[in-house]
Amino acid sequence: MSTFRERLHHLQSLKKSTLCAGIDPDLEKIPACLKDSDNPIFTFCKDIIEKTAPYVIAYKFNFAFFEIYGAQGWETLAALKRLVPDDCLTIADAKRGDIGNSARNYAAAIFDKLGFDAVTVNPYMGADASAPFLAYKDKGVFFLCLTSNPGAADIQLLGADSPLYMHVARLIKEWDTARNCGMVVGATKLAQLEELSQLCPDIPFLIPGVGAQGATTEDVLKSLAGKSALIAASRSILYAGNDSDFASAAADAASEMQSIMAQNHP
Amino acid sequence: MSTFRERLHHLQSLKKSTLCAGIDPDLEKIPACLKDSDNPIFTFCKDIIEKTAPYVIAYKFNFAFFEIYGAQGWETLAALKRLVPDDCLTIADAKRGDIGNSARNYAAAIFDKLGFDAVTVNPYMGADASAPFLAYKDKGVFFLCLTSNPGAADIQLLGADSPLYMHVARLIKEWDTARNCGMVVGATKLAQLEELSQLCPDIPFLIPGVGAQGATTEDVLKSLAGKSALIAASRSILYAGNDSDFASAAADAASEMQSIMAQNHP
Repeated sequence: MSTFRERLHHLQSLKKSTLCAGIDPDLEKIPACLKDSDNPIFTFCKDIIEKTAPYVIAYKFNFAFFEIYGAQGWETLAALKRLVPDDCLTIADAKRGDIGNSARNYAAAIFDKLGFDAVTVNPYMGADASAPFLAYKDKGVFFLCLTSNPGAADIQLLGADSPLYMHVARLIKEWDTARNCGMVVGATKLAQLEELSQLCPDIPFLIPGVGAQGATTEDVLKSLAGKSALIAASRSILYAGNDSDFASAAADAASEMQSIMAQNHP
Repeated sequence: MSTFRERLHHLQSLKKSTLCAGIDPDLEKIPACLKDSDNPIFTFCKDIIEKTAPYVIAYKFNFAFFEIYGAQGWETLAALKRLVPDDCLTIADAKRGDIGNSARNYAAAIFDKLGFDAVTVNPYMGADASAPFLAYKDKGVFFLCLTSNPGAADIQLLGADSPLYMHVARLIKEWDTARNCGMVVGATKLAQLEELSQLCPDIPFLIPGVGAQGATTEDVLKSLAGKSALIAASRSILYAGNDSDFASAAADAASEMQSIMAQNHP
């Protein structure tokens, strides 16, 4: 069986795409025509996944948007995960992080029970909190390194000469013995993206914040210089249309992003 | 309605206890006599909560141990939360942390839907990721500051003269404008506990790792010098007995800890 990283490389070449569609459905934003269906969130995401799959190499499910519905939300999440086609990876954007048996249970819930290909993990608790996730050698473990929100400055940017996120990146590089690490790196500043890319050339990046905070997809692809990455887009795809044509509108938005990626494909 | 901090102070005086029982049920460790029941995890935790409640001022539910059972685990968690008596606080030990709408949904899932009194949050993403939790002014938000695991050294102890956890503690102090912050502080080193206690005298500590890693309950209480705190114990209570008397054994273990707390009550 291929590892997450091998599958990522393969799909990137095959589909000439680095697009990761974020699945974070908001009941208040989904088209009115769906609101009478039994499970509007499920129907909405199902249609979006079916239509966008040709352009996308990964779906990133944001757990917060499902946990808000309790046990039913967890069931919706599991059902949606199951219908993602084989030529797309699945990422549990759960930002978990705990020690010992807690981490083992979080990892088992996401990898064994739900069957996700990758997870996002918060590194604050260090190596022994990361190990239970990394024990899954064929999966992908994306550690938060440098996030794209203003609050990144509070902790991640500390240390003038050698900011904390660079230290975290070096730790992630150490933890990558099974070649199953990834890093979440915001697209806020291209110089930081380049710096991290040079430090960790083999570690795939998961990149949120493209478009919204300045850097364009072209800029980001250029500074990655061909390295393995997933560029995440959520609202620009999910809410591209707000009528009965929402899924086609989402596919058009995804296709447009994929075209840019294909043109900049190394 | 009283705030979390007011209720904590009140219960601490009323019950002469700072005991927080950790609910992290492991199917492999619960008594064999329960294994044929419909939902052994529910029955086990229900009986433990009923018997230990007189000695305990808070129950801390570790989400990992419920998420491993998917939607059913989430239902068990919700059902157990509902049967905690009014004279005990409930803490969602979920270690969440994300930005914007994600954080808002995590906070709403835990506070509005499940009705917890407090939550544990990872501070790595900074102020804007913390704000949606802190918007619940009558709840408690325990930020990870200094954890009790070896991996704490990887990130939290960075910086020789002024370690990162001290910076995080100062941030938490800044974020405490509504007086609803708390801090997770491991009991690994008493000097650190004292240092943090002096820096943040008004912010309640949630303290794991007592006993297991050296410092005794008496030592910890002494270094807290009467400040508001919750001393967490999980396995020593949950698995005090492993036969049909498990709940009474748990109550005895909790009662013994509470006695020590009452003797050291300021």
